[in-house]
Amino acid sequence: MSKQKSNLDLVREVDCLFNHRNQKSFRQDPDGAPVDDTVYTWIIRHGGRTVPIGYLVPAVLEELHELPAPLREHVEIDSQSQTVTMMTGVLAEDLTKYLAEVANLWREHRTFSILQTWRDELWPVYNDVGGLVCNIERSAAGLFGVNRYGVHLTGFVRSPESSHGLKIWIPKRSASKSTFPGMLDNTVAGGLMTGEDPFECVVREADEEASLPESLVRNSATLVGTITYVYVTDQRAGGESGLIYPECQWVYDLEIPAAVVPTPKDGEVESFDLCTVEEIRDQLSEGRFKPNCAVVMIDFFIRHGILNRANEPDLKEICRHIHRKLPFPGPHEAIHIQRGH
Amino acid sequence: MSKQKSNLDLVREVDCLFNHRNQKSFRQDPDGAPVDDTVYTWIIRHGGRTVPIGYLVPAVLEELHELPAPLREHVEIDSQSQTVTMMTGVLAEDLTKYLAEVANLWREHRTFSILQTWRDELWPVYNDVGGLVCNIERSAAGLFGVNRYGVHLTGFVRSPESSHGLKIWIPKRSASKSTFPGMLDNTVAGGLMTGEDPFECVVREADEEASLPESLVRNSATLVGTITYVYVTDQRAGGESGLIYPECQWVYDLEIPAAVVPTPKDGEVESFDLCTVEEIRDQLSEGRFKPNCAVVMIDFFIRHGILNRANEPDLKEICRHIHRKLPFPGPHEAIHIQRGH
Repeated sequence: MSKQKSNLDLVREVDCLFNHRNQKSFRQDPDGAPVDDTVYTWIIRHGGRTVPIGYLVPAVLEELHELPAPLREHVEIDSQSQTVTMMTGVLAEDLTKYLAEVANLWREHRTFSILQTWRDELWPVYNDVGGLVCNIERSAAGLFGVNRYGVHLTGFVRSPESSHGLKIWIPKRSASKSTFPGMLDNTVAGGLMTGEDPFECVVREADEEASLPESLVRNSATLVGTITYVYVTDQRAGGESGLIYPECQWVYDLEIPAAVVPTPKDGEVESFDLCTVEEIRDQLSEGRFKPNCAVVMIDFFIRHGILNRANEPDLKEICRHIHRKLPFPGPHEAIHIQRGH
Repeated sequence: MSKQKSNLDLVREVDCLFNHRNQKSFRQDPDGAPVDDTVYTWIIRHGGRTVPIGYLVPAVLEELHELPAPLREHVEIDSQSQTVTMMTGVLAEDLTKYLAEVANLWREHRTFSILQTWRDELWPVYNDVGGLVCNIERSAAGLFGVNRYGVHLTGFVRSPESSHGLKIWIPKRSASKSTFPGMLDNTVAGGLMTGEDPFECVVREADEEASLPESLVRNSATLVGTITYVYVTDQRAGGESGLIYPECQWVYDLEIPAAVVPTPKDGEVESFDLCTVEEIRDQLSEGRFKPNCAVVMIDFFIRHGILNRANEPDLKEICRHIHRKLPFPGPHEAIHIQRGH
């Protein structure tokens, strides 16, 4: 059996762009985040400013160079500033159409294996003043290194006889999933499509993934904050490794009555287990959780006082990793939690 | 001739909800802004929190009480907390449809004269985590007291022989406009529809209102910040007076070459004049500008050093009025200007 993972190991696996902070090869991007000097920043020129919106790794840069002329002519690659512009200064619809053409070409030519997981789901890319830059097919988002947005919900049950007075519903991902098959997950999770409201996404996914009643979720699911990190893919994510995913997850807690039992519905989940805090600690240290779901569990433990300064020497470093300033603008900047009335 | 208006008078006309700060009848709303104790706050319950999204004045509250049963049953008016909920916990599409039914009923019955300016333009309402709560017909937005968003651009020409080295293109609004006919305006201005990008809105309006070339605007229009205020309508706005409009305007500067002359196109503008700073100061003090356009001019003067601490004793108070914290969430919270590359 492999080495036990600490909580700091687990958050570092997810917020991994920044682990090389001291390496000489990393530079500051326009927003101050350190990136590898092989990584280019996708920028738009917008309202008289230069706004960074994505990271492009060398494999993608190479393919941009190789695009057929009618597509290539809209790409400007500046090796001096390590920036890329694509069709800058057009309507969101036009850039969306252009990126779809590029992604479709790469998909047909099997240039990137990640595009074989094509979903026909459009994900948004934002500028810094609340406007939409374009939409990108979900499976192609990683190639353009743009911010991704999702929701994660932890369903817990009051259990006075258990440590910390609660147990947590943990699903096991289906063995047939293309990404992280068989790994443990959060009770409910999903990605945010363009125009989708985070709360409505939770309500929908809670039904589809766990058969949780809409009225329960609507009345009791509580937004408790966001987690933000910059993930670099490895082979478990499906598709290419080394792609950069800055991510924001809206995090919800939901107290589930003992009588309500989450049940798989759409085939994404194999089974649900009601686990104690100790069981989850073991599963975490054994590396059994999908990486970003491990981070949501650790955040839950911190918020509920299960992990604290007394028992977790790395607490401050852990918190720094799970609340990163994302390198690109978007609605994660708007959040301000108002609890109660 | 009426009394000359000071710059402070002018910004107070636009940011006018807050002028009664010391009156006993004003209370703190959930977000801390003082509002009249006859004003109710429209709230949504969202992700376990209560989020304020609009102000409802007594005339609108009365009409909500009088709605026919199938519509009335979705409204909850709580006189204790002075809050109103409407169809809370539904999808944005459902709330949008519901509000359209209410507004259409009021329009047919001529309940509010402002609805006679129906525009068939949908304006967005946001929650505090970047999601859309609903869309509202533009002319009905004031009845629900939600944040409104727009863009204003000041087109200036270098003029070494003029004071401060510049002149500014000032349009006169058409005499047939339903709102503020015949008043002076900013070079380009417009309201933001749902999903519209502020910069693209400027590009479009610059063509429609002033025949400015797209390439000039795209390359040279520069976002210089936002102005935010809470306006209360008077009769010049068309429709009811006393409606509350929290507003954010994205503010752009554009240097226009001497050879380019703005020209009316869509009939909204009667004529353009190239004015010196002194002429504009006189027009401002004579109250000839549309109120929120006066504020954009004052903000331009401050940013360009024309108004400063030496010549404007009220500078601090003026800045406070034109950069209000808006009472409701939205993309105005995302802005962070990055100048240069």
